Amino acid sequence: MADSSRIYTAALIVIGDEILSGRTHDKNIAQIAGWLGVQNIRLAEVRVVADVTAAIVEAVNTLRARNDYVFTTGGIGPTHDDITVDAIAQAVGVNVVVHPQARAILEDYYQERGGLTDARLRMARVPEGAELIPNRYTGAPGIKFENLFIMAGVPQITAGMLEALTGTLEGGAPLLSETVGCWVAESEVADLLRLTEKAHASCQIGSYPFWREGRTGANFVIRSTDANELAACSRALIDGLAAIDKPAFAGGI
Amino acid sequence: MADSSRIYTAALIVIGDEILSGRTHDKNIAQIAGWLGVQNIRLAEVRVVADVTAAIVEAVNTLRARNDYVFTTGGIGPTHDDITVDAIAQAVGVNVVVHPQARAILEDYYQERGGLTDARLRMARVPEGAELIPNRYTGAPGIKFENLFIMAGVPQITAGMLEALTGTLEGGAPLLSETVGCWVAESEVADLLRLTEKAHASCQIGSYPFWREGRTGANFVIRSTDANELAACSRALIDGLAAIDKPAFAGGI
Repeated sequence: MADSSRIYTAALIVIGDEILSGRTHDKNIAQIAGWLGVQNIRLAEVRVVADVTAAIVEAVNTLRARNDYVFTTGGIGPTHDDITVDAIAQAVGVNVVVHPQARAILEDYYQERGGLTDARLRMARVPEGAELIPNRYTGAPGIKFENLFIMAGVPQITAGMLEALTGTLEGGAPLLSETVGCWVAESEVADLLRLTEKAHASCQIGSYPFWREGRTGANFVIRSTDANELAACSRALIDGLAAIDKPAFAGGI
Repeated sequence: MADSSRIYTAALIVIGDEILSGRTHDKNIAQIAGWLGVQNIRLAEVRVVADVTAAIVEAVNTLRARNDYVFTTGGIGPTHDDITVDAIAQAVGVNVVVHPQARAILEDYYQERGGLTDARLRMARVPEGAELIPNRYTGAPGIKFENLFIMAGVPQITAGMLEALTGTLEGGAPLLSETVGCWVAESEVADLLRLTEKAHASCQIGSYPFWREGRTGANFVIRSTDANELAACSRALIDGLAAIDKPAFAGGI
């Protein structure tokens, strides 16, 4: 059962030389961050690591020890550079086995595409004891092992796996947020922000400046797990901005 | 002097709750990864951490011990949630001081914008002993402390700081790459890729599948610090693809 009084956290490990080289722009961090928020799970940290077993093992073991869930993306395809399953099995100390259901999915998929070769069968390999995460879009399943969720690198495939997981993970208190925008330099209201946050103990205020059409503005994002405190804090900030003749825009600019 | 026979590595720490919440899509990973490549420095790992001192301290101390350079982005503005400078000073064990030149830059900038308030003066604070990284676009400087480079969260401001650093960091052997594209399922050529990589010891081959207009294709990125080996490996891969009637596209698809 979910314990709604505590905060559930997740970490994400993005596995891939192509992200570190700058060749591919990661889209999974934002995708998984947003999805976790809806599940009432907070993304606490992300690591991008190279296609190197030792780097994956270190990240998996550090992050699973201190988070409720760990997600990985990348490195589960059929080629020699796809080492995620082997690295994770090594991290958790189990063997790699062919999952019968994954094998059946692949046999079906490749029946009219040249058959299930050894290379393709690599995609049915899982850490021993793992379950599959179905994916109704492309068929290619993700893998769940204890609190580890092994997802694809291609964002569209990961989306299918996330859909299958939606609503299945225990989450905690929803992190609520409100955004207040204002045409003001954040440095002008730094004291107001600090004091407003201090007066509402359960709230954090983030300040995100921007420059548009020659004007300086900022969005202030107030976050809390307490809806009443959140509303009071937002109200106090809007009133504080009004008091210095800076009209605020609820919902942000 | 740069030692061109070894590989120089960098790590990046992206500091910001707004990335972890999914609200803001990070652009600094790709920007800094690409820039480092041009400097002949390899981005070895990235961490995204929350606006929490302990998380920043842990990442800074772990990553600076095993990389030639560490970059951070985010958390150097004037508001209470900008804690990067204090966290880094704590990590390296020095005090935070106001940098006279940074103070002068801010005094000048705010002369006609309401003056240099305490909040704005926060942006002149640096770990004791640090130098500034000039930024000709917005004036706001970055900070260099030993092998740590403290950059802005706003990608356009970071771009100005990177420009100032261009060509100033020691790099090693350039990592060269060639891309070979092919309309083929990567699972069909997994053995070819693995054997071709094995036959060219200094090369790594990455395989990046895609699906476009109902067709399956893949780009194979060959990387090496040895230009001759790179050319030979690319040639071998193109020949291998031709041998199974899969014409390759040099430069990728």
